[in-house]
Amino acid sequence: MHIAIAGCGQLSRMLALAGIPLGFKFSFIADEPGLDTDCVEQLGSIVQWDSDQSPIELFALLGNPNVVSAEKEQIDVALLESLAPFCDVYPSPSSFAILQDRHKEKQLLSTLSIPSSPFCFAQAACEAIGELGLPAVAKSCRGGYDGKNQHVIKSEQDAIAFDALGEQDHYIIEQWVPFEREVSIVSVRDQTGHILHYPVTENVHEQGILKHSIAPARDLSEPVVQSARDYITRVMDAIDYVGVMAIECFVIEDRLLVNEIAPRVHNSGHWTQYGSKTSQFENHLRAIAGLPLGSTEHHRISGMVNLIGSGVPAATALSADSSLHWYNKTARPGRKLGHVNFGGASHEELIQRMERFRRDAMGTGT
Amino acid sequence: MHIAIAGCGQLSRMLALAGIPLGFKFSFIADEPGLDTDCVEQLGSIVQWDSDQSPIELFALLGNPNVVSAEKEQIDVALLESLAPFCDVYPSPSSFAILQDRHKEKQLLSTLSIPSSPFCFAQAACEAIGELGLPAVAKSCRGGYDGKNQHVIKSEQDAIAFDALGEQDHYIIEQWVPFEREVSIVSVRDQTGHILHYPVTENVHEQGILKHSIAPARDLSEPVVQSARDYITRVMDAIDYVGVMAIECFVIEDRLLVNEIAPRVHNSGHWTQYGSKTSQFENHLRAIAGLPLGSTEHHRISGMVNLIGSGVPAATALSADSSLHWYNKTARPGRKLGHVNFGGASHEELIQRMERFRRDAMGTGT
Repeated sequence: MHIAIAGCGQLSRMLALAGIPLGFKFSFIADEPGLDTDCVEQLGSIVQWDSDQSPIELFALLGNPNVVSAEKEQIDVALLESLAPFCDVYPSPSSFAILQDRHKEKQLLSTLSIPSSPFCFAQAACEAIGELGLPAVAKSCRGGYDGKNQHVIKSEQDAIAFDALGEQDHYIIEQWVPFEREVSIVSVRDQTGHILHYPVTENVHEQGILKHSIAPARDLSEPVVQSARDYITRVMDAIDYVGVMAIECFVIEDRLLVNEIAPRVHNSGHWTQYGSKTSQFENHLRAIAGLPLGSTEHHRISGMVNLIGSGVPAATALSADSSLHWYNKTARPGRKLGHVNFGGASHEELIQRMERFRRDAMGTGT
Repeated sequence: MHIAIAGCGQLSRMLALAGIPLGFKFSFIADEPGLDTDCVEQLGSIVQWDSDQSPIELFALLGNPNVVSAEKEQIDVALLESLAPFCDVYPSPSSFAILQDRHKEKQLLSTLSIPSSPFCFAQAACEAIGELGLPAVAKSCRGGYDGKNQHVIKSEQDAIAFDALGEQDHYIIEQWVPFEREVSIVSVRDQTGHILHYPVTENVHEQGILKHSIAPARDLSEPVVQSARDYITRVMDAIDYVGVMAIECFVIEDRLLVNEIAPRVHNSGHWTQYGSKTSQFENHLRAIAGLPLGSTEHHRISGMVNLIGSGVPAATALSADSSLHWYNKTARPGRKLGHVNFGGASHEELIQRMERFRRDAMGTGT
């Protein structure tokens, strides 16, 4: 089994590290010029994509893979479609076409009667805020993640300034939702439509970047957990999705509002490498390779801390009940360089240890 | 942190796969001419050792590692000693010098008052059987594993035949011990002398090769488990051992007789990849790199089946509660090509599933 993955970042790295024990071979598509490929160095061949290449040429350079997948939503759908005559492509190009575009994603949610925040599309912010109220947030349809390409609109002045950018056809404007916390559900669907869910995870952000996650999420009622499962099942079934998907939701009292769908393995599922019977990475590979899914049961309460910005030595990250994933990247401020997975006896104990780690090892408090 | 490992087999492969997430770099010493290096292909550079090389040359070719280790007991101690001026060598060359030689190993056990079967060394088998009784078994001091280089002596004729080989100075002759079953203990000791033990594992052999292992071992009294821990602690402390060690023991009524000591990660500890908080591979690396050890607690009842001889497709090996490690080797009869780790709700259920897997996927019954 040979798998080619579009993208050369940490998610590709961890997919490969999960697949090598299964006997899989990997190659990686460097789909942007000048893309940093350090993360996947040595784990398979890296093929620089060039839109002048014929698809058959690219397929041969990739080593005639059995399956092509991607580590990111912002992938050229035409690239995936061009490879589809030669091998399986999972998730399908049409899944990416929908989920890489916030407007199409919102339309899908609406069609499936899945609650998400009210929005306007291709409409002046000055008008939109009349409909949605203030504050609102303008989000780029494409390419936005971790708070990038978003404009918070707190006043009429902000709306005017946004409209002056002339970008309204590429943005949706959403009602700002005062939420208590964010959770996400990571699930996997195989080629026969069988779905398994990981426990709902609680995500704590700092400056738009996931700071730590905790699974299972604290104090979530069974109906809320069930609705998370129900929403992701509806989305996956509707687009005949194959692989791991994550849905981020806002928790508002006792209901969920879907914020974002990620057609890929997800930062909030990294804890599964340490705290679950099968990691999200192995399950994504099992699904796209047509193999039986692995159990998504968790061993115990788990958490994950992102290592952001400056290099943290392995020694400070490791303890009896934590382990490290380092991404082999060059350190730069704000860059995700690795993560530490933790196991805990209770939520309290786990959070204390994660906070202590952040303070001692990374010099950041909360 | 750069680690060089002597040997290019599956244990080196799994050490590297456990270490890459920690940010470690690897190189491998191909210490025998014509050694098959498929297992570690792509996981680091492979350096062909040549006894004409100067140690500093070898050290440079290995990429100036911080630590050198080995995946096998039969390693040239002079090679390890020659690298010791340049970097750490764990386990120490002197640990290998003792534990690669059955006679020295038996002497160490005897010095430490650890029970093992009565033996003779450098003595004619015809005399030895007078002392030890029949049957007995002649075991090569060097290079014997999985039943290789062993001669069972059931009669005086067998003893005469063995003596005719003129090999008595390279063999010990042991009393044949009628044992009920074999168990092993895998433990790890760090550079400060701190020791953690994995649960005692039960090993079922077929034709001298480990067929499956089950952890924790069934029906083992607490004093027996304690004595296993006590024996390995005494051995590790006596030789200031650093890294993972395994001791195989025969169970005879309610006591243990040490059969063999392996100064390395061990086949009977492979289940820790799936069933334990920290795998034996990661813990060996943590120990030799001077990092805090990971917890050796197990999640639940676990087992492992070796995949021997013919290629088994991943699809048949994987299930909801099992995972695969494939070694990237060319299939040959009798060759260990991979293993499957299982988790189970009870010993009975686990063993049934392992037997069913062996029957269905490998075409072998029990």
